[in-house]
Amino acid sequence: MSYDDTVTIAVDAMGGDHAPGVVLEGVASALAKDERLQVVLVGPAEVVEPFASSHARCIAQPASEVIAMGEHPAQAVRRKKDSSIVVGCRAVKEGHAQGFFSAGSTGACLAAATLGIGRIKGVQRPALCSVIPSPVAPVVMADIGANADCKPEYLVQFAQMASIYAEKVVGIEHPRVALLNIGEEDTKGSQFAQQAFSLMKDNVSGFVGNAEGNDIITAKYDVIVTDGFTGNVVLKTVEGTAKALFDALKGVMTSSLKTKIGALAVKGDLKALKDSISADTYGGAPLLGVAGVCLVGHGSSNATAIENGVLASASMVRKDVTGLIAEAVGKR
Amino acid sequence: MSYDDTVTIAVDAMGGDHAPGVVLEGVASALAKDERLQVVLVGPAEVVEPFASSHARCIAQPASEVIAMGEHPAQAVRRKKDSSIVVGCRAVKEGHAQGFFSAGSTGACLAAATLGIGRIKGVQRPALCSVIPSPVAPVVMADIGANADCKPEYLVQFAQMASIYAEKVVGIEHPRVALLNIGEEDTKGSQFAQQAFSLMKDNVSGFVGNAEGNDIITAKYDVIVTDGFTGNVVLKTVEGTAKALFDALKGVMTSSLKTKIGALAVKGDLKALKDSISADTYGGAPLLGVAGVCLVGHGSSNATAIENGVLASASMVRKDVTGLIAEAVGKR
Repeated sequence: MSYDDTVTIAVDAMGGDHAPGVVLEGVASALAKDERLQVVLVGPAEVVEPFASSHARCIAQPASEVIAMGEHPAQAVRRKKDSSIVVGCRAVKEGHAQGFFSAGSTGACLAAATLGIGRIKGVQRPALCSVIPSPVAPVVMADIGANADCKPEYLVQFAQMASIYAEKVVGIEHPRVALLNIGEEDTKGSQFAQQAFSLMKDNVSGFVGNAEGNDIITAKYDVIVTDGFTGNVVLKTVEGTAKALFDALKGVMTSSLKTKIGALAVKGDLKALKDSISADTYGGAPLLGVAGVCLVGHGSSNATAIENGVLASASMVRKDVTGLIAEAVGKR
Repeated sequence: MSYDDTVTIAVDAMGGDHAPGVVLEGVASALAKDERLQVVLVGPAEVVEPFASSHARCIAQPASEVIAMGEHPAQAVRRKKDSSIVVGCRAVKEGHAQGFFSAGSTGACLAAATLGIGRIKGVQRPALCSVIPSPVAPVVMADIGANADCKPEYLVQFAQMASIYAEKVVGIEHPRVALLNIGEEDTKGSQFAQQAFSLMKDNVSGFVGNAEGNDIITAKYDVIVTDGFTGNVVLKTVEGTAKALFDALKGVMTSSLKTKIGALAVKGDLKALKDSISADTYGGAPLLGVAGVCLVGHGSSNATAIENGVLASASMVRKDVTGLIAEAVGKR
């Protein structure tokens, strides 16, 4: 690290099912691991002030309100101007932090970041991006739910932004980019997909063609681009299918004494397989295209997931993902 | 069975990766198992005639052409008027058979059935339907690819048709029908999904609300309705994810002597789990809404899958799925 790589991340102390406990724990670990990290901890004064005064490189930013998981995102963001999510995004907008991390409501983070931090100039729509849990290799997908309704041209920018994330953060050199579709041939798919194909072919470096549903988890491609409706359904389908199969497998392994004994021998390797397809490795889903780093963690995040999320946010700032996106999008 | 339940199914002798060998084998088994089954075997004279003359209840219907898997479906159907798929559908149209089964090109079967057999009066668009391989319970999904572009109102009929199939063929009493969406709440989703939700709520008996991607394989609902683009991507995602995990599991099980020994103990139960999520159990994907039974099997079908497909086609005829759909759709 160079002398000037100190990074400040605003962290939503109230985000997630186990907040604020696991958030504080995760922030403490992140601060301990990264000596050039500063945290602006956003939440109720009685939560953030005692923590900040007992931890170096942590600043308390009181915010009196909390947006709950079930609230209507856009409405909640407009109404609760002193909520931890809105105040956290404002800290980025005003330059007190370079990135924002929350394990709270994804919808509220999207709304608050888009309204509060604002889009990078030239970006039509920010995209939510995620690393698909694959046992083969990491696969980056966008959009996974920021834009339920898309125009085909949005997908060109989704591809550009996701490629930068794949290369700089996930570490995939020269990522191969594919459009999610219902057949491999150029002429396949809905009218939307056909138009997106033609635009991506002409405007996305690294574009290699169409991917089908069964190509995702096999890591046949590095970046999968789709609209936010399909992407959200597909990501949840992968997660749900993997979870259901592991649950069924657990049933098989514990069905008799014989299988229990057999299970003992494969237990460690199975755990490793299960971990390899865990969504937590990359710290959360980045919202790409806003004028500052914004990372959203799983609601079920534990302290380790929070720590990963805060460190990943800092890493995205240091790798200047936002600047690279601005440059790439400005080129067109 | 009653005295009049003799059923005639036209079978594409040239459909699938291993045709005609496995098709003939499968047809022979189906004829042996179901004594009230007649088969019109469609394909090159030199293939179908010797088989028909050596098997009771089998009639040869020569067809000189074959549509290959890679061909453009609609074009191939228009050009190859003497292909086994086109001739097979014509046999249904002309009343020589009540159903058609093929393990050939899905797209060509859809095009040939829609053009050749025709739609049930009142059906806006036929839907391709499938049973999702779930370790929990069978889940019926439509559309899985007949209509890449849909209007919201199509989904009402998809729901009605898939419910009849779920109840009569899969054996699910009072199926719970859900719309595939990106959130549980009524107001969630794309404009398309919101419109479909509102129409389904008013017009589909058994409609219980929105399903998300992670609700599919858990069998939280019995029937999942969506457009053909999303349905196709999701079905392939489930199949691809399950396959990738079983492949990874195989790697785990054979990684060392210790795990190999452990694997021996769970082998049988694992095989049972793998079989429980096999797509072959229901014989293929029915095209619902055409004026005759049309079932499309996997291209990779073996003789057992072909046998299941032919028997399932006969079962759909006996259960009068086509008549029940006509009645349900006529009610609106």
